[in-house]
Amino acid sequence: MAQPIMLPRNETGIETVTGILKQRFGDRVQTGASVREQHGHTTTWIDNQSPDAVVFPESTDEVAEIVRICAEYKVPVIPFGTGTSLEGHVNAPAGGISVDLMRMNRILAVHAEDLDCVVQPGVTREDLNTHLRDQGLFFPIDPGANASLGGMAATRASGTNAVRYGTMKDNILGLEVVMADGQVIRTAQRARKTSAGYDLTRLMIGAEGTLGIITEITLRLQGIPEAISSARCSFPSVDAACQAVIATIQFGIPMARIELLDEMSVKAANDYSGLELPETPLLLLEFHGSENGVVEQADSFGEIAADFGGTGFAATTTTEERNKLWKARHDMYWASLQLRPGASGISTDVCVPISRLAECVTAAQDKARELGLIAPIVGHVGDGNFHSLPLIDMSDADEVARAGEFVGWLNDLAISMEGTCTGEHGIGQGKKPYLEQELGAATRYMAAIKAALDPDNIMNPGKILPG
Amino acid sequence: MAQPIMLPRNETGIETVTGILKQRFGDRVQTGASVREQHGHTTTWIDNQSPDAVVFPESTDEVAEIVRICAEYKVPVIPFGTGTSLEGHVNAPAGGISVDLMRMNRILAVHAEDLDCVVQPGVTREDLNTHLRDQGLFFPIDPGANASLGGMAATRASGTNAVRYGTMKDNILGLEVVMADGQVIRTAQRARKTSAGYDLTRLMIGAEGTLGIITEITLRLQGIPEAISSARCSFPSVDAACQAVIATIQFGIPMARIELLDEMSVKAANDYSGLELPETPLLLLEFHGSENGVVEQADSFGEIAADFGGTGFAATTTTEERNKLWKARHDMYWASLQLRPGASGISTDVCVPISRLAECVTAAQDKARELGLIAPIVGHVGDGNFHSLPLIDMSDADEVARAGEFVGWLNDLAISMEGTCTGEHGIGQGKKPYLEQELGAATRYMAAIKAALDPDNIMNPGKILPG
Repeated sequence: MAQPIMLPRNETGIETVTGILKQRFGDRVQTGASVREQHGHTTTWIDNQSPDAVVFPESTDEVAEIVRICAEYKVPVIPFGTGTSLEGHVNAPAGGISVDLMRMNRILAVHAEDLDCVVQPGVTREDLNTHLRDQGLFFPIDPGANASLGGMAATRASGTNAVRYGTMKDNILGLEVVMADGQVIRTAQRARKTSAGYDLTRLMIGAEGTLGIITEITLRLQGIPEAISSARCSFPSVDAACQAVIATIQFGIPMARIELLDEMSVKAANDYSGLELPETPLLLLEFHGSENGVVEQADSFGEIAADFGGTGFAATTTTEERNKLWKARHDMYWASLQLRPGASGISTDVCVPISRLAECVTAAQDKARELGLIAPIVGHVGDGNFHSLPLIDMSDADEVARAGEFVGWLNDLAISMEGTCTGEHGIGQGKKPYLEQELGAATRYMAAIKAALDPDNIMNPGKILPG
Repeated sequence: MAQPIMLPRNETGIETVTGILKQRFGDRVQTGASVREQHGHTTTWIDNQSPDAVVFPESTDEVAEIVRICAEYKVPVIPFGTGTSLEGHVNAPAGGISVDLMRMNRILAVHAEDLDCVVQPGVTREDLNTHLRDQGLFFPIDPGANASLGGMAATRASGTNAVRYGTMKDNILGLEVVMADGQVIRTAQRARKTSAGYDLTRLMIGAEGTLGIITEITLRLQGIPEAISSARCSFPSVDAACQAVIATIQFGIPMARIELLDEMSVKAANDYSGLELPETPLLLLEFHGSENGVVEQADSFGEIAADFGGTGFAATTTTEERNKLWKARHDMYWASLQLRPGASGISTDVCVPISRLAECVTAAQDKARELGLIAPIVGHVGDGNFHSLPLIDMSDADEVARAGEFVGWLNDLAISMEGTCTGEHGIGQGKKPYLEQELGAATRYMAAIKAALDPDNIMNPGKILPG
């Protein structure tokens, strides 16, 4: 296990605050070991660093009250949603109070005419889409996990259909945020665009709770397309698949999803999901549009794919076949784990300009082999973003070290290709060493903003920035 | 004329810095009255506040050097592009140095496979699109004026096709910025998405030069659509036109442009551009897609429009007719001025949730009438954004006062409708009184960021925030 840095603990403050919170919130403050551990980081190889207490607020006012109490005694505050983040975002390296926002799970308003809605941070994306379905609307961002919308905002999540609909930064109109001093602010009005002052909305999106706690989110919605069709196509090489993607995007086909599975991932999907696909690189695609439009899009893609050696192209508009394909894609994490039962999967992501994607993916495959690692790859290739999942025996220190070497090497490579060390997982604790390497002096100004908005460093300390 | 606030001048510093810059840059520092006045604010009713000198750097290093010199003596630095901003952004209320970036006008790279390019801030959007045309690419943001891309980034510009392609915030991958201490930073790598740290890119976009000077911009590009078609349609009322827009967007028709002209604007366009349109509210539309796709989109819109009483619907794919229609739209400012020859046009903009748009536009028409003002309206209605252009005899103090009352009233109304006092013109000097009214305590944190990144308040002082 990777041991994240511990930070100095304010023992007296933590004890005092825990006492005050217990008095104020009663049973809604919990200090049992298992609850605390569940609210530390549990989903990857980063060691768990549990908070000292977990509090379950039910309103913005309560969140503000908690933050004010913590601010008075300079005690860390760590916002928590579904705990599905991957880079140690919810760990408590200096201890402190985990603020579990999952009881704030109301959909406050749906404005169908405006194609927006207002939700509390504990609403999950699946809950929201279930609620919206009858109105012919949906919220497009899909990071795989049924994450909370507050967590998705805080980590600037994206996923399979960002190629068409963008990331969280593109789909939020405004936020309500509790700042480090307990003040509640709104970052923007509900208009679809604004040029009124600094873009605090985008500053808070992806700040991973280090600048404030998001307590309300105004989301852009989309109309459910008249027609949806899916397709798959096998390619002789990763390079051929990527070239087909580049041509598709240049041609202006408005792809809703375009996902790459490498050879090893296809094998995993075949075994786990009972598919019978050729075990060569595969693209999974989705088209949104009118009835005629999706047929036209699929036909155009099919022609492009053929130019790059694509075979077995098959499009479908039946919901059943479509769901089967995408369920297989969404199950890739579990499918991949079955390639090596008992191993732990270390999910890492990078994102590069799409012209460099084939080279980056192929190099990652070669490097993993060289290091003796099993590391299947899946990618949101329309964005140049991909995930590698080294499957590691955590009891083998040498193998763990080789996995660490692989992740570091991959980050270096992506950065050298004008890419980023993280396309959608965030910095958290795991990618902190790479942020300055990637952005240099810019990180100094990030630190200046952090110091200005949270002078006592109580908001999710030890994440993103040094210290 | 509206008299913006003057700020205290650092006379000694200004004199010293001007001397140093003259020694360093020779003829590229100018202090003549007419050059200085051209670099103050000239396009609206806000009084000109000229800088003390104008310097014409030719590289990022030179910009950094200028900022370092100004920082040492605590002298204001005001970045300048084409000077087409509308809210006093380039005025010099405390004097200081205008940095004219128009000699930094090189297109540094076009990455066709990645659909991005890297430009210096003095490249105009028309120059860029001329350069890109042979490669089948274009940059979609069109604020009307042939503005510089640096200025468009700094003011978070948008315009007629934001409904499809978003605003500047959605179309920039990363920036190079000279910070207030002269340090040059890059805000992001060239990947299409990132979750690496705070979104300094979006923080700088729309900061109006108050946090740094943008010296390089990495822009997202689009493939030129296979087919483009335009259409127009008259409606019995603003409300009917807006209802048709709402239905169109809900239906998922991917409109590239959807513009409203009110009765008065149609009359102006008829007179100025030799059109013969019925003088009732009009929508101008543009569809981008495949050959079949644009026909389908136009047909679908035509059916929706008919449901809301639309008449005279006519679509065209011929370039000539399309250009005539959009030229008339782009000439609206000049056309409107002809409604009252000799008057000055005061362009103001607000943006509201689209469900409130008809009510807001209609109320604005009524209010203008009540105040005895001639104020045609045009709007980017797909975004809920519209412009009113009171035509004012600037020598009539009472009329100027009534125009001021109108602008204030309209901002209040938009804010009360969950909208913003500025959808795309920015805050500058003109909208400063409304920012706190709109965003309340959030402005305190904007001020904290400003103080952290520019502690001596030398970067375009007196804009956006109080003081």
